[in-house]
Amino acid sequence: MTDPEDLATQVREGDLRIHELEEHADHDTAAEARRLFVERETGTDLESIGDYTFPAERAEPNIENMIGAAQIPMGIVGPVDVNGDASGASDGGAADGEHYLPLATTEGALLASVNRGLGVIRTAGGADARVTKNGMTRAPVFRVNGVAEAAETVEWVNDNFDTLAEAAESTTSHGELLDIEPYVVGDSVYLRFAYDTKDAMGMNMATIATGEACEIVESETPASLVALSGNLCSDKKPAAINAVEGRGRSVTADVLIPGELVEERLHTTADAIAEANTRKNLTGSAKAGSLGFNAHAANVVAAAFLATGQDEAQVVEAANTITTMDARQREDGTSDLYASVSLASLEVGTVGGGTKLPTQSEALEILGLRGGGEPAGSNADALAEIIAVGALAGELSLLAALASRHLASAHEDLGR
Amino acid sequence: MTDPEDLATQVREGDLRIHELEEHADHDTAAEARRLFVERETGTDLESIGDYTFPAERAEPNIENMIGAAQIPMGIVGPVDVNGDASGASDGGAADGEHYLPLATTEGALLASVNRGLGVIRTAGGADARVTKNGMTRAPVFRVNGVAEAAETVEWVNDNFDTLAEAAESTTSHGELLDIEPYVVGDSVYLRFAYDTKDAMGMNMATIATGEACEIVESETPASLVALSGNLCSDKKPAAINAVEGRGRSVTADVLIPGELVEERLHTTADAIAEANTRKNLTGSAKAGSLGFNAHAANVVAAAFLATGQDEAQVVEAANTITTMDARQREDGTSDLYASVSLASLEVGTVGGGTKLPTQSEALEILGLRGGGEPAGSNADALAEIIAVGALAGELSLLAALASRHLASAHEDLGR
Amino acid sequence: MTDPEDLATQVREGDLRIHELEEHADHDTAAEARRLFVERETGTDLESIGDYTFPAERAEPNIENMIGAAQIPMGIVGPVDVNGDASGASDGGAADGEHYLPLATTEGALLASVNRGLGVIRTAGGADARVTKNGMTRAPVFRVNGVAEAAETVEWVNDNFDTLAEAAESTTSHGELLDIEPYVVGDSVYLRFAYDTKDAMGMNMATIATGEACEIVESETPASLVALSGNLCSDKKPAAINAVEGRGRSVTADVLIPGELVEERLHTTADAIAEANTRKNLTGSAKAGSLGFNAHAANVVAAAFLATGQDEAQVVEAANTITTMDARQREDGTSDLYASVSLASLEVGTVGGGTKLPTQSEALEILGLRGGGEPAGSNADALAEIIAVGALAGELSLLAALASRHLASAHEDLGR
Amino acid sequence: MTDPEDLATQVREGDLRIHELEEHADHDTAAEARRLFVERETGTDLESIGDYTFPAERAEPNIENMIGAAQIPMGIVGPVDVNGDASGASDGGAADGEHYLPLATTEGALLASVNRGLGVIRTAGGADARVTKNGMTRAPVFRVNGVAEAAETVEWVNDNFDTLAEAAESTTSHGELLDIEPYVVGDSVYLRFAYDTKDAMGMNMATIATGEACEIVESETPASLVALSGNLCSDKKPAAINAVEGRGRSVTADVLIPGELVEERLHTTADAIAEANTRKNLTGSAKAGSLGFNAHAANVVAAAFLATGQDEAQVVEAANTITTMDARQREDGTSDLYASVSLASLEVGTVGGGTKLPTQSEALEILGLRGGGEPAGSNADALAEIIAVGALAGELSLLAALASRHLASAHEDLGR
Repeated sequence: MTDPEDLATQVREGDLRIHELEEHADHDTAAEARRLFVERETGTDLESIGDYTFPAERAEPNIENMIGAAQIPMGIVGPVDVNGDASGASDGGAADGEHYLPLATTEGALLASVNRGLGVIRTAGGADARVTKNGMTRAPVFRVNGVAEAAETVEWVNDNFDTLAEAAESTTSHGELLDIEPYVVGDSVYLRFAYDTKDAMGMNMATIATGEACEIVESETPASLVALSGNLCSDKKPAAINAVEGRGRSVTADVLIPGELVEERLHTTADAIAEANTRKNLTGSAKAGSLGFNAHAANVVAAAFLATGQDEAQVVEAANTITTMDARQREDGTSDLYASVSLASLEVGTVGGGTKLPTQSEALEILGLRGGGEPAGSNADALAEIIAVGALAGELSLLAALASRHLASAHEDLGR
Repeated sequence: MTDPEDLATQVREGDLRIHELEEHADHDTAAEARRLFVERETGTDLESIGDYTFPAERAEPNIENMIGAAQIPMGIVGPVDVNGDASGASDGGAADGEHYLPLATTEGALLASVNRGLGVIRTAGGADARVTKNGMTRAPVFRVNGVAEAAETVEWVNDNFDTLAEAAESTTSHGELLDIEPYVVGDSVYLRFAYDTKDAMGMNMATIATGEACEIVESETPASLVALSGNLCSDKKPAAINAVEGRGRSVTADVLIPGELVEERLHTTADAIAEANTRKNLTGSAKAGSLGFNAHAANVVAAAFLATGQDEAQVVEAANTITTMDARQREDGTSDLYASVSLASLEVGTVGGGTKLPTQSEALEILGLRGGGEPAGSNADALAEIIAVGALAGELSLLAALASRHLASAHEDLGR
Repeated sequence: MTDPEDLATQVREGDLRIHELEEHADHDTAAEARRLFVERETGTDLESIGDYTFPAERAEPNIENMIGAAQIPMGIVGPVDVNGDASGASDGGAADGEHYLPLATTEGALLASVNRGLGVIRTAGGADARVTKNGMTRAPVFRVNGVAEAAETVEWVNDNFDTLAEAAESTTSHGELLDIEPYVVGDSVYLRFAYDTKDAMGMNMATIATGEACEIVESETPASLVALSGNLCSDKKPAAINAVEGRGRSVTADVLIPGELVEERLHTTADAIAEANTRKNLTGSAKAGSLGFNAHAANVVAAAFLATGQDEAQVVEAANTITTMDARQREDGTSDLYASVSLASLEVGTVGGGTKLPTQSEALEILGLRGGGEPAGSNADALAEIIAVGALAGELSLLAALASRHLASAHEDLGR
Repeated sequence: MTDPEDLATQVREGDLRIHELEEHADHDTAAEARRLFVERETGTDLESIGDYTFPAERAEPNIENMIGAAQIPMGIVGPVDVNGDASGASDGGAADGEHYLPLATTEGALLASVNRGLGVIRTAGGADARVTKNGMTRAPVFRVNGVAEAAETVEWVNDNFDTLAEAAESTTSHGELLDIEPYVVGDSVYLRFAYDTKDAMGMNMATIATGEACEIVESETPASLVALSGNLCSDKKPAAINAVEGRGRSVTADVLIPGELVEERLHTTADAIAEANTRKNLTGSAKAGSLGFNAHAANVVAAAFLATGQDEAQVVEAANTITTMDARQREDGTSDLYASVSLASLEVGTVGGGTKLPTQSEALEILGLRGGGEPAGSNADALAEIIAVGALAGELSLLAALASRHLASAHEDLGR
């Protein structure tokens, strides 16, 4: 019965359904049987996909119908020199100091570029980073009869925050309800619940807690629940509400780079970088009707997410970044470069989700951020700060490359 | 010299730089040495990260500073029953028929959900899918003295498309310049070049070709190049220009599901699903200031991207989807469900980038879409159509779950 | 000296500057002199512009360099049957009942269309309307050295709301500071102050009060003020922050129209109207990357603003509306039409600004809403509710026209 | 029968309907009767509203249910020194030279502010202005059975542009069809028709012409028309499609102001203005999720629209502006200020609509732009260029005020 060939045959003959294999064999055998079935159906050889090196059972909370694994190359950049505030302690939090940041990607030149930026940041004395806002959100949508009932519902919710908080928090040992923001559109009422979910990214926690609170809303008001998510959360969509109000961590990282360093290491000037940033990241994005005012923050966010077991689909909003680059004039007339990235909705966790898988868990260990932090939430804060500095390094490096190429060609022009 | 321990020590002592290891050893040894170095620096054991099963050398175009790989669980959904138009041939293109779709993710329940949706689609006779637009874009930004020069530049570009196309296409054997759209903002001129890049995702191709054309623009007009990407491309940012005008493939998939099937398999009604879609995906997203009018298309896009070696950071715009769900009334008063997803800017390729890596390459083989298509471009078209159907299945399944839960509770209400 | 001909000559000869005329003559004479000057310079006859009928002096707070007036045709629609909540009193607020709504416009057919919609609303028993949020905002931007100072500033502001409120409110007899929301982008800190400005639109009040509070922020934190408005207010720009969080009044109006009435008076069906609304106002606007999900709410808002002396440039955000139209099925299988408009950021006042000018003041009197309300704020609330019902009527009428034309042509199709 | 008192009584008693009055009396008497009726119903005295000074009959195409007029104060700014390109002629187009710009507003200080900016522009040698794109759009939405039919429809439309152009242009003596851009969302097809409507704003022209073309689309493809406007036009909504692709005129105005002039006349520096612009108009608007990257362009656009008889509700998109301000360093180390405004979708006309009303017509005469231009379209182009320069002046003046206030306070700081 647990021979993978047999199982594959049974699936092929319709005696077993493809998702039922784990009921008849251990997880690795089930994956093998499924792979065999697919190989036969499609005439392929899935040796590499089958060559994963973790116990399939460990992936049970993460996947169904497993056939193996995608292997994404992982590299290392750093050290990331960050003056963070993750723990709030006077002697420096979890993100205070130097960390190697693992990145998994297939985008050639990305790590080299980020590493170059990190080197400049280190020489400049490190980057500052701060989480300026924190709250995982879930926004159910309710149906009411019309705006009269909507107003009544909103009023009840505003008056009964404590009751709803008690219900929501009864479902979680760590989560804390911070806020409920109501929005009315015709006969729909959206309630945006925001939670402090500590070291968990927290979407599941927020969903379950909100579900509990919704039952009370339904029983005490005229509103009936249509969907636990009404898209004002907003999860895995590029929404202004996240860009403006934040989701997960809002985090900023910045650095001041002496003009000499810009010239020596980036082969350009603060003015040239500032110009490229303004024309591309600010004016260009403005004209594009964009919610993203950066060069390629998504590259760093996505690669760090893959390496550390974050939710890869949340890259959509987690990458939402405004990059600023300004030339700060000194008294001697030369300019230093002030560079910053502000990520509005970086959803990260160091517990739960994909963080427990073997390679991902090791990646978090490299950062010293595996599992819950002390105090709770500080590991996720620190991860947010480090990713932000990584994104800052990537922005610096790319914009410097653009600016220096321009300078080079300007020099050629003069040389003619 | 090629002992990894020695190399790690040399890095630690500053005799070697961390990115130079490949100059002194083969790629796997270099990765091992780097891993050893990181293990010592951080007091960790990176056994799982080191347990990758492909030759490190194959990842050379994809990563620097490699230490190993992230292993992301991969599963299979399907068959995907799609009536596509990928090849334009009367007997059906590459996406015409049934395909198993590999998905790599850490998001539990995702594959089960998509698979449920695909089952319903199959029973309903399959989904239609069409690529309605295709063009990989790159939009450099130029500096001019002012709007007078901007207008002069735009006029020259409009008058000299052929010259620019010749230059651009001289750099590529496959790519074809389709269009140059100029935009003026003050003393900045943005030219959005759009290419048919066939089976390649094509961003590099577009960048190189555009660089060549830019030299002509610079020599023939007053404009000087500031940055090869001026963010009107727009790459890896959630920009309206992509949502409106498309980037990569614009693709729609849809299906008509008989009312009986909605009830039997999804345990709800077309009306209830349509209501949930309107309140959540349309009105909710509208209120959120969103560019994404869907439930969780990013989940499917991200998982398919990881499995098949696409650029994970492009999930940002590739997931840009409008989902519609309508109850179509029949003469007998009952309703069928029309469901569709329209992805505006799905950037995919079956050659280049991460598609050559072993597990990713096998994933494309499962789909029958590895490498270049016949005719050129048809494999990438087919991949776009199949991912769209996967996203459609995910939307269907989630919205049905929301709607049926609601119906269930409505029934309870009546039962009280 | 006060002969207009002489004055005009002096301006022409450079002895007087065009804006100094009021220093040498009464306002009407100054306007006449200026008109004469312009007539001579441009070879025109400005008889109509000069034919205004109010004392020029009354326009002093509203214009400089006055030459006369634009006369915009004003008409009347109504009665507007609204069940509002403007006063919060049990016996109905200021907007409870029937009102004639004056509209000034040059858009032919607009009033006819709105009037048709209002008639249907009356027959249906009137529309409900509620102000669901209220707050005039002003968001100064401060410069800090970097994110460390930004975080410090935000913390200080959060800890010292009462101090800032006291300062802000010291400048106004009516205004009340409701909230300060901080936003950090690199080395910029934005503080969004929100006020209850009662019956005044309140932008000046908010600006002055915020200016006072800013002085304290500057003296107590490292932040220095760059601009009293940092565009997160956001005034006279179409910004998601207003669409999401509101500015001025967030107001919803809705109505349930029996199916028979839809057929008799609008010559179409609830289903057809709902379809047109979904394809045009929801899906169409989604695809357009729009912040406005309506048909032509701006027409009604602009015309009501002109008639009642509101700020015409605020139409930009005041018109920001989501329109929903749903067919609500009855037990007998027929459908009623639920229609709503939700205006997120309707900035209106019944005191100050242009409301004191003669024609505008009379227009407010027609509505019974001239001057301050009892309680304070109720007149502006009522005005918001009435304008919302006007917008609802306009949406209904236009969508019905679209839907009925379609039905008509569908009938023709069948007739062929 | 034509006694206004009698007519008012008949309306009150229900013998006449309020919109039928023009059938029983001349337009002025009808307006008087309606006014009397409203006065009695509301207990008001509408003397000022009734004190309009144009023949009511002239407003017939612009309003229904007329009771009089709103009188909006009108002033004059200028001369506007503009180096335009309106006519394309070598000796300068209609906007080439100096013009007085009439503005109607109730926003105190606006004209003074704009005038200050215009003075600086004149001293700097005038502003350049160019219309960089032109096309009035109308985008009907069609229903199809699904994406297969959508693709078929799009293909037919792309293949039959000439046929559709012929049909569209058969309805107009001036209009010219420039482009049809198709967009597919599920079972909806949107076709964005763009026209050169010469000196007319052209929305009606575009609507009628598109209606004609739609009939052919309906007869030749499976598509059926749902609504002549599907919101991808996009009219009177703040939509990215307009900001990106333009609607009406896309126009840029700019000026280079010597540093000395910035100091003498604006009491600040190019650097300080550039900083305020970046933090407020670029970064602030970015963080606000805005489609408007300017300070108060809507003020100038709205006031010019009211004065010259444009559609006041189109201010929503016509004000869509990106403002840039940069310090351009000179060899001596000092900086000049480059300032620009780019209005993406300025819908203006010099014929039709409200332009024929007496005061509005005179306002156009002041500009020398009343009626059709020679060549056709040049008057509307010129109007666009002049309004753009007016907006530029307003931006300059406000940003300088912000920057100088800051400088002043910085000086105080130093003085302490």
